[in-house]
Amino acid sequence: MRILLTNDDGIYAPGLWALYRELRDDFEVRIVAPEVEMSAVGHAITLASPLRVREIRRNGAFYGYGVSGTPADCVKIAVQEILDTPPDVVLSGINLGANVGVNVLYSGTVSAATEGAFFGIRSAAISLNTRKEPDFDFAACFSREIIGFMQRQGLRHGTALNVNIPALPPERIAGVSITRQGVGRFRERFERRVDPRGNVYYWLSGETPSEDEARDADTAALKRDMITITPISYDLTCREELERLKKSPLPSVGLHDGD
Amino acid sequence: MRILLTNDDGIYAPGLWALYRELRDDFEVRIVAPEVEMSAVGHAITLASPLRVREIRRNGAFYGYGVSGTPADCVKIAVQEILDTPPDVVLSGINLGANVGVNVLYSGTVSAATEGAFFGIRSAAISLNTRKEPDFDFAACFSREIIGFMQRQGLRHGTALNVNIPALPPERIAGVSITRQGVGRFRERFERRVDPRGNVYYWLSGETPSEDEARDADTAALKRDMITITPISYDLTCREELERLKKSPLPSVGLHDGD
Repeated sequence: MRILLTNDDGIYAPGLWALYRELRDDFEVRIVAPEVEMSAVGHAITLASPLRVREIRRNGAFYGYGVSGTPADCVKIAVQEILDTPPDVVLSGINLGANVGVNVLYSGTVSAATEGAFFGIRSAAISLNTRKEPDFDFAACFSREIIGFMQRQGLRHGTALNVNIPALPPERIAGVSITRQGVGRFRERFERRVDPRGNVYYWLSGETPSEDEARDADTAALKRDMITITPISYDLTCREELERLKKSPLPSVGLHDGD
Repeated sequence: MRILLTNDDGIYAPGLWALYRELRDDFEVRIVAPEVEMSAVGHAITLASPLRVREIRRNGAFYGYGVSGTPADCVKIAVQEILDTPPDVVLSGINLGANVGVNVLYSGTVSAATEGAFFGIRSAAISLNTRKEPDFDFAACFSREIIGFMQRQGLRHGTALNVNIPALPPERIAGVSITRQGVGRFRERFERRVDPRGNVYYWLSGETPSEDEARDADTAALKRDMITITPISYDLTCREELERLKKSPLPSVGLHDGD
């Protein structure tokens, strides 16, 4: 089985290395990842500038391809240009920090998995819920379970899995849960500062979820020390509103003809 | 009524100006938009660098705030920092080029409307289906209809409208249609080139939809010269897969304990 690995922390990130080390002996593993950190790029792609692809070595041996673009770019160019054969599985991660709730929209890690799903490839994003002193071993090991899970269950075309793992020893993890994306707002604010030349600038800060969520929301389950698996789709259509608005009087095209 | 205008083509773009000119006499209009073009940034936000905000003048008068960030950044900082009172409506556009089908995921224009919806503000993205010689007059006029439509119908919390307008004289527009996001793949490819120093680089190109879509897909309706209105949500959860996977045997946490 051929597995494409990518991420948004960059090709030198330890989370990617942990996945590679876990999987390289049993699978045909290829790495195509951003050359530099690309966090919070959302589902960006590079249109205004060309992409460069560089062979990256690690410990003296060929490791993978570094791309001057976003995670979504990496999956596109891997499938369409770099790899001889499309991969059977795309794994994106292991990300340093959870990708749950509305933050999923901003996540480069998740966008790579979504891009894999565009191509009809079984794809998952893997994130570890910590920003310091990460131990990726268990998360890497669990990623292998995710590959097996996708193979056993299959996945509807266009659906990817967004997996979040508590940063805990396995014996303290409360279990595995199929979840929905949390929709509560995060409590954000801008921190206003003044630079040495007297100019104002702003940092975005403070991203702890502010609201209680449904029990099966990824945000809530992760708080209960569960591993969360959220099936996500790239179809943003809000179906309830679709049905309701179809029955509504529509805006008129010619209303301002006489103006 | 207070209306926040933003876009992803940048604060100097003629599509934004057309909206402003159409609405300024009847509404309290505020502009907070990226200082430079930000196309295909997806739902990116700026975390790794601070944001700068600059007052922008046009024809000698104050026009709006230029932000050194993405469309999503602009809506966040407008609501949380720049404006005294949150707007009643967010309009993003008028974008030069359609935002339909899976391309919606890559759209900065749409992400600004989604960000407005996060805040519970009635929000719409407006795009004109042309890349050359745009005449924004009718699209600006129709945006006023969209404001009225959102006020009359209301919108479920977290839902925004993604509006696409054919670049045709009003009498040739076939009508208005409530649509779903098309899910067909675009026919993309990378164009490989060699720079004067002998290094390879790649351009992403070719984005015409490749597949026939359902009749109520935005891609298909726009091809029939309809104005499309797609209600979109930031909840990426795939509900069919959620229900199915909840009934599946889950991956085990402890499977590799004995390794």
